[in-house]
Amino acid sequence: MALDTATRGRLASLVGAENVLTAREDLIPYSFDGTAALRAMPEAVVFAHSTSEVADVLRWANEARVPVITRGSGTGLSGGSLPSPHGIVLCLTKMGRILEVDAANLTLLAECGVTTVTIADAAAGMGLFYPPDPGSMKISTIGGNVAENSGGLRGLKYGITRNYVMGLEVVLPDGEVLWTGNKCVKDVAGYSLRDLFIGSEGTLGVITKVLLRLLPKPAAKKTLVATFDQMDRAAQTVSDIIAAKIIPCTLEFLDRTTIACVEDFAKVGLPLDCEALLLMETDGHPAAVAEEAAQMESLARRNGAMEVRVAKDEAEANRLASARRSAFSALARVAPTTILEDATVPRSELARMIRFVEQVARKHGLRIGTFGHMGDGNLHPTFLTDERNTAEMARVHEAFKEIFDEAIRLGGTITGEHGIGVAKKEFLPKFAGDASMRVMRELRRVLDPHAILNPGKMFDP
Amino acid sequence: MALDTATRGRLASLVGAENVLTAREDLIPYSFDGTAALRAMPEAVVFAHSTSEVADVLRWANEARVPVITRGSGTGLSGGSLPSPHGIVLCLTKMGRILEVDAANLTLLAECGVTTVTIADAAAGMGLFYPPDPGSMKISTIGGNVAENSGGLRGLKYGITRNYVMGLEVVLPDGEVLWTGNKCVKDVAGYSLRDLFIGSEGTLGVITKVLLRLLPKPAAKKTLVATFDQMDRAAQTVSDIIAAKIIPCTLEFLDRTTIACVEDFAKVGLPLDCEALLLMETDGHPAAVAEEAAQMESLARRNGAMEVRVAKDEAEANRLASARRSAFSALARVAPTTILEDATVPRSELARMIRFVEQVARKHGLRIGTFGHMGDGNLHPTFLTDERNTAEMARVHEAFKEIFDEAIRLGGTITGEHGIGVAKKEFLPKFAGDASMRVMRELRRVLDPHAILNPGKMFDP
Repeated sequence: MALDTATRGRLASLVGAENVLTAREDLIPYSFDGTAALRAMPEAVVFAHSTSEVADVLRWANEARVPVITRGSGTGLSGGSLPSPHGIVLCLTKMGRILEVDAANLTLLAECGVTTVTIADAAAGMGLFYPPDPGSMKISTIGGNVAENSGGLRGLKYGITRNYVMGLEVVLPDGEVLWTGNKCVKDVAGYSLRDLFIGSEGTLGVITKVLLRLLPKPAAKKTLVATFDQMDRAAQTVSDIIAAKIIPCTLEFLDRTTIACVEDFAKVGLPLDCEALLLMETDGHPAAVAEEAAQMESLARRNGAMEVRVAKDEAEANRLASARRSAFSALARVAPTTILEDATVPRSELARMIRFVEQVARKHGLRIGTFGHMGDGNLHPTFLTDERNTAEMARVHEAFKEIFDEAIRLGGTITGEHGIGVAKKEFLPKFAGDASMRVMRELRRVLDPHAILNPGKMFDP
Repeated sequence: MALDTATRGRLASLVGAENVLTAREDLIPYSFDGTAALRAMPEAVVFAHSTSEVADVLRWANEARVPVITRGSGTGLSGGSLPSPHGIVLCLTKMGRILEVDAANLTLLAECGVTTVTIADAAAGMGLFYPPDPGSMKISTIGGNVAENSGGLRGLKYGITRNYVMGLEVVLPDGEVLWTGNKCVKDVAGYSLRDLFIGSEGTLGVITKVLLRLLPKPAAKKTLVATFDQMDRAAQTVSDIIAAKIIPCTLEFLDRTTIACVEDFAKVGLPLDCEALLLMETDGHPAAVAEEAAQMESLARRNGAMEVRVAKDEAEANRLASARRSAFSALARVAPTTILEDATVPRSELARMIRFVEQVARKHGLRIGTFGHMGDGNLHPTFLTDERNTAEMARVHEAFKEIFDEAIRLGGTITGEHGIGVAKKEFLPKFAGDASMRVMRELRRVLDPHAILNPGKMFDP
């Protein structure tokens, strides 16, 4: 497709001329997402304001066989909203209304373009709690979170986005609108189409509304930071915490490189002579929180922690937590290109995996900072590189391959929370196996027979 | 198919002659499940002892176009394991080994034929907790629980079976074996085939192994029973508990008819002059449990409870809880046929729904006892009838229709935990809508192209 006048007119008739961008300088911001080293120009960007506009655009695209790339805020880290050749970007950020907060049923209904933080704030305003907290939550949209099944720092105790989606409105490629799920905690009528759409990265339908489950807000919370001179001691502390039957709401770690970058960036006052930092948070009833925090502190000390700091108040807790939250930004400052990975292994294999990542970096002469969710085995090895250095990028790619192979070997996965997109497409077949790949291909063919939705993402037909 | 000597020989060659039943008297126990008024004879019953035997049987059936009805203990309440004409029953109760309890990763791996209670006990033996507790858990199998996405009494706080399934081994109709999921808390690589199989009632594949998530065992628990002279007061108490930001692990109710039957059956010492009984349980940290129990007690009293009993010890707690657990058995004693339904509505609509059920029963001159999960809106209106009385059975059917219509109208579902099977097939299209029905039909055609798996269940092609 070259976007001729007729096509432009047609799109304008569907959503209004002011909601169709075609000038090159207007398209550039939509030619990439949060993923490093990936760029492609769309033919047009179309903003929809309602479900029926989404349906109209899809119906047209399905007939005209035009690829549609769905996009929220474009914070994805696997190239999920990277434009396709000859395709349009369907941007959903204007569908930004919270439609209902139902305190009696503990649910929240929102359009797909609402930001995650707006949802968290709306829940908090009613004394309620929306737990999923992906790193991008200040700008990412809930529709994108559901399409990617986003994780965050609270996965171990509270689960991920999937666990909070009760219902979805989805537009199918032919423009048909489907509603799946409801406000019932229990509903087993038919296949869970809801769960099929969650995490399908926009390849099966366009999510337009989301019904979310909320929890009561935990009454108390305590934050601790412990530093260790050896990674194994931090890992042993994590194992001991789980063995003590404690499920903290946060159990994060930073390695030496990440600590140095964070301290340089955020001046939190972190010690620079340690190999690992553990951020531990427990929430719930004040008595439970006090006991669990004391237990975690003593387990860290027993494992030879160099220092354990317990936040005295919320301000200090936020400062300590921000060390972890700023890890990616801090690493991103020190190199032109930062490639953030999310290989994930069963928690018991985490120390082994961290050592393996270090070896791989050494072997290929690469700089790497690793941080992540120690409680749920979700690592973020982050390569500090330069995409203009093609020789080094080839080595980065080789290193990835070895890391993913090892994650699979240890019973883990190639992506814990970022998705497949285009970035991990080549690794999915080995991970999923022939039978699953065959089933996934057939499901996609059934739901999107003309392959207009995010073609080229996740896997090829 | 008439089971000729050649076919019998073929099946015997696959699983051993001792694992093929064909004599009429041997088949009778497999001609029904827990659902009232449904019976059909299979041609044969085949016991598989391993995944490869399941694959062999399916490969043969797929080529020979023989319907395969999968069955665990046959406790289902929607006719899900009712034999099909000319079909065989594939019984999986002999695949009964727990393969691993992994305390470091809080997971349990089991073959499909392990009973739910065995899994709960194995977890408890390690100080861990498997929360889903369907009423049939003493005999139901975990494979059946996953296929039906079984609920239980702890749905509100702990969720249902789906929330505890991390991975599945599934045999597809052509005999291919697929593994989906792993021990990672976070895994977003590809579509969640796992979630598609959960609750698909055996129509997409045969579940042979299940990887389950466990929790630490709650340290304390408290049980209360409150009685009310008006249903609305019980319902208001439930609303007030949720508004007070308490999520009890159990919040169950019995109506007057059920209370009378239970007392007659189990002699728990329940008052007979009340209209509603609430069973409330809270678990977790001892301090949280003490506070929440005290709050629930005071909320019940403020709403005019006739009596509130707080269990002094575990023995009394078990006695009080058994009143609820024995509800179905108690009702089943008083009429030749007991039809247990599970219409479910958002919690806020529960009082309205209970009144509607009473009106419907009166209008059609039917005896009904209602109990269920008040915390999650999952009602069990139970018709006390006699399947030989065809006139009354027609009225029961009419009453169902009205109840399901009202559940849909109130934003609820036609089945909260029993599944569609054959019992609710006619109600699914109205509930799901045309678009969802079309997608479900296509998904099934893709996964089971020759329609050999539980044909006639859930919906027709």
